[in-house]
Formats: sequence, structure tokens, C-alpha cells
Amino acid sequence: VKISDLRTPAFLIDLKKFQRNCRRMIEKARKLKVRLRPHVKTHKTIEGGRLQLGRELDGITVSTLAEARHFSEAGFEDILYAFPLTPDKLPEALHLTRRCREFHVLIDHTEAADHVERFARRHEETISCYLKVDSGYRRAGVDPRSESAVQLAGRLADSRWVRLAGILTHAGQAYSSHTAAEAAAAAEQERRVMAEFGERLRDCGIEVVVSVGSTPTACQVESLSGVDEMRPGNYVFFDKFQVDIGNCKTEDCAATVLTRVAGVYPDRSEIIVDAGALALSKDPGATHVQEAPPVFGSVAGRPEMRVAGLSQEHGLIRCEKNTRVDRIRIGDLLEILPNHSCLTAALFPAYAVRQEDRIVDRWIPVRGW
Amino acid sequence: VKISDLRTPAFLIDLKKFQRNCRRMIEKARKLKVRLRPHVKTHKTIEGGRLQLGRELDGITVSTLAEARHFSEAGFEDILYAFPLTPDKLPEALHLTRRCREFHVLIDHTEAADHVERFARRHEETISCYLKVDSGYRRAGVDPRSESAVQLAGRLADSRWVRLAGILTHAGQAYSSHTAAEAAAAAEQERRVMAEFGERLRDCGIEVVVSVGSTPTACQVESLSGVDEMRPGNYVFFDKFQVDIGNCKTEDCAATVLTRVAGVYPDRSEIIVDAGALALSKDPGATHVQEAPPVFGSVAGRPEMRVAGLSQEHGLIRCEKNTRVDRIRIGDLLEILPNHSCLTAALFPAYAVRQEDRIVDRWIPVRGW
Repeated sequence: VKISDLRTPAFLIDLKKFQRNCRRMIEKARKLKVRLRPHVKTHKTIEGGRLQLGRELDGITVSTLAEARHFSEAGFEDILYAFPLTPDKLPEALHLTRRCREFHVLIDHTEAADHVERFARRHEETISCYLKVDSGYRRAGVDPRSESAVQLAGRLADSRWVRLAGILTHAGQAYSSHTAAEAAAAAEQERRVMAEFGERLRDCGIEVVVSVGSTPTACQVESLSGVDEMRPGNYVFFDKFQVDIGNCKTEDCAATVLTRVAGVYPDRSEIIVDAGALALSKDPGATHVQEAPPVFGSVAGRPEMRVAGLSQEHGLIRCEKNTRVDRIRIGDLLEILPNHSCLTAALFPAYAVRQEDRIVDRWIPVRGW
Repeated sequence: VKISDLRTPAFLIDLKKFQRNCRRMIEKARKLKVRLRPHVKTHKTIEGGRLQLGRELDGITVSTLAEARHFSEAGFEDILYAFPLTPDKLPEALHLTRRCREFHVLIDHTEAADHVERFARRHEETISCYLKVDSGYRRAGVDPRSESAVQLAGRLADSRWVRLAGILTHAGQAYSSHTAAEAAAAAEQERRVMAEFGERLRDCGIEVVVSVGSTPTACQVESLSGVDEMRPGNYVFFDKFQVDIGNCKTEDCAATVLTRVAGVYPDRSEIIVDAGALALSKDPGATHVQEAPPVFGSVAGRPEMRVAGLSQEHGLIRCEKNTRVDRIRIGDLLEILPNHSCLTAALFPAYAVRQEDRIVDRWIPVRGW
């Protein structure tokens, strides 16, 4: 199959770039002397997960129980479910605990600890967990400077039915950076906060894995002293957001949306393509480093074009004034670099994997929760 | 199954409200003396399509060929594929033409007409089409005041291999209205432009169906003189956007996202829920009538809460300052009214259909293109 045979819109993965991004992160982790526990949420495919890990099926990070099931069934034996556990999800967490060599849940609250402990005791099974720490993102996690954080860690470490495997953070604030230097500073903050908290716990006799992770910090960090593992995910594809904050180059981006021109309007320098909000997502991208109004994607090799608007199935591309829009033909193929590849990938039932202009494979992501 | 047994996030359809919204639109079309050719793109389910049509399987509108296939296989015999046709999709359009009693494609350009005509001639089959008209939205469509629009209509009407079935517009500009009165004005503009263009064609001896459609205009329009059919879609669910522009009441909204509290942060009056961007979409809603920054949904029965931020799986809900956030429990169920139900529904592999707090059915939407 050639690219030009695909039904559009289609999600294209450039296999060589995907492999290169995976290899680079494996090397980076090796250089930093930390374990790579890659996040698979960006692509949600077994094939992608294998490439992220390299030679062996080692630990991964997932964002949903649907991912956990899917990867567990494919033979992945060490899975960290990195979303704060709610009590309704305990039966499936127990099932995965029994099925996998290692399965870890995430906790950031004594109430959640109560739920896990009661459930584990009732089923006479130890449930392994990571303690979620807020290193500055202010989304979820305990405050690592607080006394209550140490108390919660101590309680989990002492529990007969819970195993405290690690402490974990996600420096989401790195996505607000304007430059690679700012992301490097966020990475150093992430490292320092977690290393210090790990040290405090060690002083209390609690030994845990110290885990950090985000693509901007993983790409820009220069030292991970005091840290044991990292969990980046987006780096497999990268996207326009990562380009815009200086975290990668356009040629590193491994995922694009293939689309066809469906309408041509020379009088207003606009065209319509068959990739709308259901193919690209309405993620506005790195608005903090862009001019307003938001652009929903750039067009590969066509700097004069930008995705200016999206409705359900229509993508509106605005061209610079002097563009010969009348020369654009209905049916012409374009490739759009999406703002946020995680959200874009999730909209496609299958990915077309390319080498040059040939489609060499088809990856099916897992969906739902 | 009870609502509280559902894995969250879940897409909930209130069956009675859905049925009532469908009945009201059927009655509205009857009162306006136009045919209702409902758009099924909002829900993409056979069950929903049947309720939209009422007693008989009559004409529908679809936004993708995947929908066309799916509804055709379920016995729907008159399908309008209301997205400008690209030449690669002609083989499937031909297949659907042969399979359905009526199948119509959409054209707004002479180049597309060339493609359809050549393909139809080669396969000795007449392909039926609607001419897309721009009634002020400036997305796709011919300018109805232009000479070229009449010429294109004439050429399609005269072609041996193409049948010009109708002229069609979508008054998307009605979504920019601030009040029901403004939407009513947009509806009257939509009606007038199309009725006049239909009249111009009739003067040239061209008889066509005159088709209009959008939920705000369909809800607010008072006369459709000179129009033959209407194609609203979103009205089956409605959503926060439609409430915000004054087009429906909150109690008319038939779709919500069920979610559970996963984190509680009283010191910053925030909670985390398990419905993120992959459950709600990042549609910013009716930003032209809202305060900035955008809100990604409201919480049913909890006016003190608003969805202030979304990452892939995390929804961040900010509560008014005096809220007793410490009384919110991990695992508590909340229902979020999404900004844009079309984009939200598309994120779920299945919908849970409720009556009161019981789940009475499970609808599976079609996906992809």
C-alpha cells in the first residue's frame, strides 16, 4: 500500500523516526544511569511499547486500566498505572496484581490508602503502590515539604497489605516553558524535589524508587542524581507543541495526519481539508509561545499554510496572501503536524506505519478505560 | 446495571430527554412543513438515528463514509454524505449509490464536478449530488449571488451522469450568536439566501430540493418558506455551548460524562476527576459569551464547580472559595455537561443509556472514516 492509497484522514507514523526517538531515550536513560519506564499512553500500541523498551519487555507506565489489561495480555509483566486510584477500580487492580509480576497503583491521599488497605486485607493480597508527589505542577500529588506526606509514606511502608514501591512525580509545568533552557530548569527542580523527598524518607528508614517523568524534562535534563527511573511518553511522536517550546526539531516528529484538499477558495486564500476536530483534536497547542489566535497544526513542507480552524470534519487552512491557491487541486494530499500527538492519536482506530511513501504496518491502539 | 456500577469515565445518554429532543424536532419540521433529514454525526448510532426519524426509516445526513456504510447496512435507504467529495472517495460513493435507494454526495467546485462526472460515465451510473452553498459561514460552498454558482448548478442539472438533487447550506455562523434572537436572525438569513437561490435556479428551469440545517437555526427559526428540508444534528444531545448561547435549557441536555473524584485538594479548592481531555475533548465552548479563560464543562447540580483544566486523563475542577472541598470523598460520582457533545461522544467506544439511575441500553457508535 502506498500513502496515496490511504483513506483520509489517516494517522501516519514514520517508523524510522519513531525508532530513532525510542533509541535516543533508551540511550539517554543509560547515560543518566536511571531506568526507563516509558509511558505508553501517547500511542497505546504493543508495537510502540516494544520499541520504547528496546530489547526486553521491562516496566512500562500506563494511564488507564484498559492500557494495563492490553499490555498485560501481550506479556508486559511490570506495569505502573499512573493515575490516582479510585475505589471502584480496585477489583481490576487486584486482578492485574495477580496476573503481572509487578503491578503498581498510584495514591496521593490517606483516604485512597484506606480504600486500598481495606480491599487488600479482605482479599489477602499485597497491593503495590507509588506515592504521587507534587513537584510544582499543582495537579495531583502530596506536598513533599509537608509533614503529612512523610506520614502517609510511613503508613504505606508499614502496612502489611500495601507495599510502597516508589515516589513519583510528573513535572507538567515543563510544558509551560518557552525554551529548552527553561525546561532544563524545570527538570532540575523536578529532580531536586524528588531526590530530597527520597532522602527524607530514607532518613525515616523508608527505601523507595524515585521516579520522575515528562518529555520536556527527560529531553533537557542533564543529571538525575538521586533519581531511579524516568517515565517520558510523548517523545515517541513529539508534535508541534514540543517543537514550539524548543524541545525537538520538526524533523524529529514521527506522527502526522494525512489529509486531502476538499475545497479551494482562492478569493479568501483558504482551503478546506478532510481532517477536522475529530482527526486533529482541538488542543490549542503551545499558546504561551504562539501568536493568538491558536493554530491547530502546521502543514509539512508548506510554511505558507496553517490550520486556522476546525469543525467536526472540516479543517480550514489559511494560506499566506501571495499563495497561488488556485493551483491547489481538490484531492491533493497534505500532511499536518498536530499540536498534541497524544490527543490526536487517540482519535484514530488504527495507525498507518510508513517507511518513505510505503505503508509497512498497521498498529491498533487500545481505547477506552 | 446501576449508574454507580459503571467504569468511569462513561458517556451517559438520558433516554427520555433524547427521545423528547427527537420528538420536538420532528414536530417542528412538521409545523414548518419541511422534511427532516437529521444529521446523525453527533451520536453515530443506529438506535439514535431511528429515534431521530420517528416511525419510518427516512432520509438522514452523515459526515463520513464510515457513517454512510454503517447506516446503509442497518437498512437506512436515503443517505446524504454532506462533506465535499474528494475523488479518492468516489469508488465507495458508487458502491453506496448502487446499494441505497438514494445516496447523495456534496459538491461545491467545478473540479469536483469533473471528477464525479468522469467517474460516473466510466461506470455507467448516475451519481446524485447536492450543491453546497455558502449562506454566510465562509467555510465551504459556492457564493449564491455569483454567476458561477448558477453555471455550476446548470452544468450538474444538464449532465447525463450527474443528478442535481438539491442545494444545501449549513449556517454555522449561528454558533457565533449570543442569544436566541440572534440565532433566529441567522436562521432567517439562511432561509432567505437559500430560498432566493432556489428561485434563481427555478427561473433557469432547474428544480431542486432546498436544504438548510444547523441546530441553533432549526431551534429558533419561525418560517422556512421556500425551503424543503432541514438537517440539524446536535439537538439530540444539546450541550453547554447550546445552553450558553440561549438555544436550550440545561434540563434539555441529554448527554453527560460520568466521572469519579480521584483527588481532593482543599488548600487550593480543587479536585481531580477521572475525565480528562480524552473523555471531554478540549473544545473551549462558547468563548464568545463566556468569561476567559475557557471552562471545559459544568458539573450537574454543582454550580460551585467548573472544569478549569484538562490533561489527557485528568480533569481539574475548581470550586468556589467557600466550598467545603474537604467533604468531597475520593470516588464520589459527578456528572459533567460537556461543551460540545459531538466531539465528546466521539471519544467513547460505547454509550450508557440511562433511565433514572438504571442503565437500560448500550449504544455503539461507528468510528473512523
